[in-house]
Amino acid sequence: MSAEVLSALSDALPAEAIVTDPDSMDAYRWDRANDPDAGMPLAIVRATSTEDVQTVVRIAAAAKIPVVPRGAGSGLSGGSSAVEGGIIVCLDRMREIAVDPATRIAVVQPGAFNAEVKAAAAEHGLWYPPDPSSYEFCSIGGNVATNAGGLCCVKYGVTTDYVLGMTVVLADGRAVELGGPRVKDVAGLSLTKLFVGSEGTLGIITEVTLRLIPAQLPPTTLVATFPTLEGATQTVLDICAQMRLSMLEFMDRASINAVEDELRMGLDREAAGMLVIQSDEPGEYASGQIATVEELCAKNGASEVYATDDADEGEAFVTARRMAIPAVEKKGTLLLEDVGVPLPRLGDLVVGIERIAEDRDVLISVIAHAGDGNTHPLLIVDPTDAEQRARADIAYGEVMDLATSLGGTITGEHGVGRLKKPWLADYLGADVMELNHRIKAALDPDNILNPGAVY
Amino acid sequence: MSAEVLSALSDALPAEAIVTDPDSMDAYRWDRANDPDAGMPLAIVRATSTEDVQTVVRIAAAAKIPVVPRGAGSGLSGGSSAVEGGIIVCLDRMREIAVDPATRIAVVQPGAFNAEVKAAAAEHGLWYPPDPSSYEFCSIGGNVATNAGGLCCVKYGVTTDYVLGMTVVLADGRAVELGGPRVKDVAGLSLTKLFVGSEGTLGIITEVTLRLIPAQLPPTTLVATFPTLEGATQTVLDICAQMRLSMLEFMDRASINAVEDELRMGLDREAAGMLVIQSDEPGEYASGQIATVEELCAKNGASEVYATDDADEGEAFVTARRMAIPAVEKKGTLLLEDVGVPLPRLGDLVVGIERIAEDRDVLISVIAHAGDGNTHPLLIVDPTDAEQRARADIAYGEVMDLATSLGGTITGEHGVGRLKKPWLADYLGADVMELNHRIKAALDPDNILNPGAVY
Repeated sequence: MSAEVLSALSDALPAEAIVTDPDSMDAYRWDRANDPDAGMPLAIVRATSTEDVQTVVRIAAAAKIPVVPRGAGSGLSGGSSAVEGGIIVCLDRMREIAVDPATRIAVVQPGAFNAEVKAAAAEHGLWYPPDPSSYEFCSIGGNVATNAGGLCCVKYGVTTDYVLGMTVVLADGRAVELGGPRVKDVAGLSLTKLFVGSEGTLGIITEVTLRLIPAQLPPTTLVATFPTLEGATQTVLDICAQMRLSMLEFMDRASINAVEDELRMGLDREAAGMLVIQSDEPGEYASGQIATVEELCAKNGASEVYATDDADEGEAFVTARRMAIPAVEKKGTLLLEDVGVPLPRLGDLVVGIERIAEDRDVLISVIAHAGDGNTHPLLIVDPTDAEQRARADIAYGEVMDLATSLGGTITGEHGVGRLKKPWLADYLGADVMELNHRIKAALDPDNILNPGAVY
Repeated sequence: MSAEVLSALSDALPAEAIVTDPDSMDAYRWDRANDPDAGMPLAIVRATSTEDVQTVVRIAAAAKIPVVPRGAGSGLSGGSSAVEGGIIVCLDRMREIAVDPATRIAVVQPGAFNAEVKAAAAEHGLWYPPDPSSYEFCSIGGNVATNAGGLCCVKYGVTTDYVLGMTVVLADGRAVELGGPRVKDVAGLSLTKLFVGSEGTLGIITEVTLRLIPAQLPPTTLVATFPTLEGATQTVLDICAQMRLSMLEFMDRASINAVEDELRMGLDREAAGMLVIQSDEPGEYASGQIATVEELCAKNGASEVYATDDADEGEAFVTARRMAIPAVEKKGTLLLEDVGVPLPRLGDLVVGIERIAEDRDVLISVIAHAGDGNTHPLLIVDPTDAEQRARADIAYGEVMDLATSLGGTITGEHGVGRLKKPWLADYLGADVMELNHRIKAALDPDNILNPGAVY
């Protein structure tokens, strides 16, 4: 069977598109989650067109073998882990971007990086808002497949809010167009929205039509440090009760120190928490918001508050925040969480995670898209210490259980992938899991699309 | 069978919840589309709880008879037309609204009016943006079921952008909770988004969790009239190329005159088109936007441009726009369209509709959420003139064909319902129709939920 599949691929696709050498395939077997259970695929196909993807899916469908789509490999939940004996369709060569300024859309192939879409839009004075921290090295296809979030979501929403349409290759190899360059369209079921966030389990997205908006105004940035976690999280609540900022991020002491180790920019290593805040409102209105934020920080015991209109200076603080995951990663192997709670429970979540870290004697650094209640606890493990790793694995589950008990979710923006799959059923409950399964079975009856991921 | 169903309903529900008298049932057989093919239902059940709805669906599922959900009956596509021998579940008594200002959400029963949700949010300084023209008499359940739009969507998006979660009764009578009070949540398929816009064909929504945002700033309003349609539509394009306004509405001569007949507010009866525009940006920034809009209007030959910061005066113009459908309705029986196009094709659509009106000798008035490319051509028919009605029916289809040929949709915000169903397959194509059917079959295998609607 394997030989027949490989022969069918070779007959239908140029040799340069197919990778079968085991060493070369290693570059495609894992995403950033480093799933220890990733299998050895039969082949990697580096597609250059929708037709290429259709060819692969048809061959896989005939042989009933798995197909795993892969973009830039920056996924944090193992959604692109290789499946034993399957084909990985890599979309990294499909990177075209066409901006239509009159319609205010970008038509984008899945392998284009988020930053490339932003840059293409900016050439026309337009903006594609969603901004995962990894925006410089994550692909739009993956953003759409996971319904990725980011830092500006607190005001501008998540990926799904910007996806107007897509071309998607179905499990039987047909390609369909869903939605299109229309801001409003309610003809038939909301299939575009269903495919967003489906993590490659319902189809393989080969083109997306994205909504663009006018360029963001230059933001004002405020950074505040707090001697207590409660001071920082209460400030977040107080701010959200009265205004809508374009950024409202949190870093704890461990992540502040990890970033300071890298950047030496003078961050307060003693602070329990730091907020990085931006307003992109026009002129005086932004000043008014920032003045109110300063008052709220002071009320909640901030040790230092600093505001700046200087774009470069502001961007330096945002870069510090974006740097947190790579900086913390240098301290050990990461187990990366993505739990979210309704905003009023943010303090309970952050303090509860601190307790889990103490109980399990594991270092957990917390960064958060605080205005969304979406946190990224980073469990840091010494890769040579198996006993510590075992404790961290327990803590990893306990953090999700804590979030769920606070009315929160096990994943806010990274996706379930394979790493969080064991927790999905408990989170959704049996009835909603069954709905997921019914839809999966209706669209991919032989379960060839990214099997083992999500549900 | 009918007797058994009625007896089961009577056993399970209080007598006051059940309407079976034919004359009394007439009040529930039609929505605002006045579908001539509406059937005679077996019973109306006026539910007061999720459990009531579950009871009805279980009884209907056992008997395999249709269940049609109904909110305020303000639907414009016949999505709530009664089905012969079925049960209508009317949700008009389920109107509770609970606003949680800390989480910035409203938990709302489906029968609550859109305006009631807005009012409840406003008590906490918050805002629920989606604003169908019918907001004073349409229900949230219907808004969610059709993914309703409105006037502020051009900046603030449509209903789906504000739906965080829901309780929905499935075809077998189970109730499930989808999503919840979390701004970001990507655990499992985007089922909440799939149910939004499903027009009662996948489940019956009995509660929704809506995202609220801080109150809108007081808008500045600008009204401009144009001697040509092209001048008005080109102005829309020019505006959208450089800014994002909170309202950008269009009315043609027939609708201006119909509204002026009602309101006598001094609108220019000779104008070919009028734009009603608002900016809700802070202070000077809004003034700058409005000044630019004034220049663009002048460039495109506006005959009159008037701007005001006075809230009441501004609201009077918006009311005039909202009044258009009821005002035009007084001129005859309406066939109401809802076609949308990619923004650059707005002019082609509006001019093309004028040509269809001439060719078919039918009066078609056009109003539009112009900034979205979403138009409402209103075909006005003398109810006593069967021959004219036949021509109007042809024109009704031709308008949809025109929109589709321009890359547009047959329905932007009203839904397919029963009136637009004959055009859906051509618009979506066979493959996407089949996807719709597969999902419907997966979730409602006996086709009891709103059969005959949409697909």
